[in-house]
Amino acid sequence: MNKKSESILLHEKLKGKIEMISRVKISDAHDLSVVYSPGVADPCLEIQKDNKLSYKYTRRHNMIAVITDGSAVLGLGNIGPEAAMPVMEGKSILFKTLGDVDAIPLCLRTQDTNEIIQTISLLAGNFGGINLEDISAPRCFEIEDELKKICDIPIFHDDQHGTAIVIGAALINALKLVIKEIHNIRVVINGAGAAGTATAEYLLLMGVQDLIVCDRFGILSSDDESLSMVHQKLAKKTNIKKLKGNLSDAIKNSDVFIGVSVANCVSREMIASMNEKSIVFAMANPIPEISVEDAKMAGAYIVGTGSSNYPNQINNLLAFPGIFRGTLDAHAKEITIKMMLAASLAIAKMVDEKMLCRDYIVPNSLDKDVHTEVAKYVCQAAIDHKVAKTHE
Amino acid sequence: MNKKSESILLHEKLKGKIEMISRVKISDAHDLSVVYSPGVADPCLEIQKDNKLSYKYTRRHNMIAVITDGSAVLGLGNIGPEAAMPVMEGKSILFKTLGDVDAIPLCLRTQDTNEIIQTISLLAGNFGGINLEDISAPRCFEIEDELKKICDIPIFHDDQHGTAIVIGAALINALKLVIKEIHNIRVVINGAGAAGTATAEYLLLMGVQDLIVCDRFGILSSDDESLSMVHQKLAKKTNIKKLKGNLSDAIKNSDVFIGVSVANCVSREMIASMNEKSIVFAMANPIPEISVEDAKMAGAYIVGTGSSNYPNQINNLLAFPGIFRGTLDAHAKEITIKMMLAASLAIAKMVDEKMLCRDYIVPNSLDKDVHTEVAKYVCQAAIDHKVAKTHE
Repeated sequence: MNKKSESILLHEKLKGKIEMISRVKISDAHDLSVVYSPGVADPCLEIQKDNKLSYKYTRRHNMIAVITDGSAVLGLGNIGPEAAMPVMEGKSILFKTLGDVDAIPLCLRTQDTNEIIQTISLLAGNFGGINLEDISAPRCFEIEDELKKICDIPIFHDDQHGTAIVIGAALINALKLVIKEIHNIRVVINGAGAAGTATAEYLLLMGVQDLIVCDRFGILSSDDESLSMVHQKLAKKTNIKKLKGNLSDAIKNSDVFIGVSVANCVSREMIASMNEKSIVFAMANPIPEISVEDAKMAGAYIVGTGSSNYPNQINNLLAFPGIFRGTLDAHAKEITIKMMLAASLAIAKMVDEKMLCRDYIVPNSLDKDVHTEVAKYVCQAAIDHKVAKTHE
Repeated sequence: MNKKSESILLHEKLKGKIEMISRVKISDAHDLSVVYSPGVADPCLEIQKDNKLSYKYTRRHNMIAVITDGSAVLGLGNIGPEAAMPVMEGKSILFKTLGDVDAIPLCLRTQDTNEIIQTISLLAGNFGGINLEDISAPRCFEIEDELKKICDIPIFHDDQHGTAIVIGAALINALKLVIKEIHNIRVVINGAGAAGTATAEYLLLMGVQDLIVCDRFGILSSDDESLSMVHQKLAKKTNIKKLKGNLSDAIKNSDVFIGVSVANCVSREMIASMNEKSIVFAMANPIPEISVEDAKMAGAYIVGTGSSNYPNQINNLLAFPGIFRGTLDAHAKEITIKMMLAASLAIAKMVDEKMLCRDYIVPNSLDKDVHTEVAKYVCQAAIDHKVAKTHE
C-alpha cells in the first residue's frame, strides 16, 4: 500500500479527524437546568458584567481557531477553503495531542484581505488566540498586522513565526557544532515569502549581522525600486555588503543556507562555494532545494530538511503546540518576540548536549516533553515581559 | 445551595462545557505522515477536484455551527457575544449528547445584518449546516432568508422553527385529547417576534384557518399601516374575521392560546373567556404569561409552559438535535417545511396514546429515543421530497 492510498483510506475511515465533545454528562432535568436553561443565565450575566469572565466560565481559555483562506496550503498552493480542511483538521489534532489546546479549524471562503480581517475580528470573542495558517504572502503580513491591532487576543501566523522559531532553534544547535558565533556568520535565505521574510526578521533579532535574502529574481537589494513594500523594508535591513546578483552570487562564502523556496533550485556547485563547515537547511516540501545526499557530497557539514525521511527535520510542529499552550497558560495578550526566542531556546535545549551531533540538532517533534518545555519557557517569558495575566 | 450558585460553581469547575478532541492517535512519525504532512495532501487534492468530497474526508458531514450575535439570549435580551457563550456551549453539548452532532458555538461581535450574513456565508464551507440562535427579530428573518439564498448548506433559525415544530407537536396531541379538528379551531398567538411569527406561519401550514396574532399593541390587522413588513405579511394571512382590539378581545372564544411573549400578560379572566376545553401554552421564560395554577383555575383544560418545573414542557430541545441529525444523515441541502412537519409528527407520536393525558402531551426531552425518531422522520422526509443526497 503506498502513502497516497493509506492516507485516503484512513481519512475515509475516520470520517473527520476532529470531534466536538461535551465535558459534562446530562442525565436528568436537574443537570439540564444547571448546564442549560434556566441556570446558565447566571454565568451569562456574570460575563455581561465583566467580559474577562468569558475565560472562566466558557472554554475560551483553552480554545483557539486555526484559520486559513486556502491560498497557500502545504506545497499545494491555492487549493481553496474546502480542500484545505484536511490540513487544518490535522493541525487541530496536533494542537490537542501535543499541547492540549482545543483548536477549531475554520477555512474562509474569501481571499480578500479586508474580508479576512473583518471575519476574524468578528470571531475573536470566541477564542483565546488565533493561529493563522497557509495564507499566501504578501496578504498574510497585512492580515496579521491589522488583526494584531484590532483584536484583543494573540494572533500568530505559524507559517511565518513557527518556521522562524524552529529555524532559530536549529541554528542555535548547529552553530554549537561548527563553533561559529551568530554575529560572525553570513546567512543566505532563499525565498522571500511568509516563511523567508519572518525568518530573516527573526535571525536579525537573534544577532545575525550579515544576512542576504534572495527571491526568484536574485538578491534583495535596497536600491532596487521594483521591490514590493515588504521586500523593500527587508532589503534595507539586510545585505550590508550591497551584493548584487543571483543565488549563486549570494551563497558564495556564506556559512548558512536556508531554503524556504522551491525544489531543486540549489546546485552542488553552490554548496561547494560556501565557507567551511557549512550549514544547509533545505526546507522546500516535499522536495527540498537540494537533496540531502547532494548537499553532503558537495561538502555541507550539517543538513536539515522539512522531511521526516532524513535526520534534522526542521518542522513547525516543534513550536506551535507549546507556543499556544504557554501563551494560554500565561493569559498573554500577545505572542511577543521574547516569547518566540524563549521557544527557540527551549527547543534547542531539548537536544541533550551529549547527544548533539551533525545528524541530531533538533528534537523529535512527537516528544511531548519538548512541547511541555516550550510551553513553560513561553509562559515564563510572557510573565517576565509583562504581557501575561491580562484577563484576571 | 441555590440554582445560581450551583450553575456558577459548575461552570467554574468545568472550565468550559465543550472540548475539541482528536479522533485518531498520533504515536509515531508514520502516523504523522498519514494524518498530516505529506500524506494529507492526497485528500486535499481529491477535495480540490470535487468539493463534495469535503463531506467524505473531513468532519463536515457531522459538523454544524451554532451562531449568534448575542442580541436575544434566553430571556436575558441583548447581552452580547461573549456573555452568550455559556448558552451556545450548552446548545453545543445538547446537540452532541442527544443527536451525536458536532456543534461549534460561534458568537459574532456584530449585530449588523449584512456583516452577520457575510461572516456566516464565508464560514459555510466548514459545516454541514448552520443553526442560527438567539438573534433578535426582525433581523433574524432577513439573515435567515438571505443565508438560505447564498449558502449551499441547510440554515435553520431554531428560535423560529424549533419553537414552531415543538408547539406543532404539542398541539397535535392536545387536539386529540379535546377532540377538536385543527381546521375548526381558533388559535391566538401572543408575541410576534421570531418564535411567534414562525409559529403562526407553521400553524397555517398545519391547517389552522382561524389564527390571530397579537403583539404588544394588540391584534395584527392587515389595514394597520404602522406595521413592519414582516407583520404586514403576517397580518394578511391571519385574522380572517378582521377583529380589532387587544389581547383580551382576541382571546375571547378562542380554543388555543399560545404565548411566546412576556411574563404575566394574561389574566384569569382572559382564560375564562376562551371556549370550552381550552388549550394554553404559556411559554414566556422564566415566568410564563400566566401561571399554570391560575390558568387551570380559570378553566384551561390543558396547560403547557417552557419550564421543566411543570408538566408539558414545550421545549425546543425536543426538536433541534433530531432535526440536524436527520438532515445530516440525509445529506439534505435544506431543512424544508415537510421535514419540520415530519419532526412534529415524530415528537407527537413519541407520547404513547395510552399514556396521553392533560399532563402528558409531549415526551421527555432527554429521552434519546425521541431524538432518534425525529431524526428518522426528518431524514425520510428529506428523501421523499427530493432534497436529500445532495453531496454524493
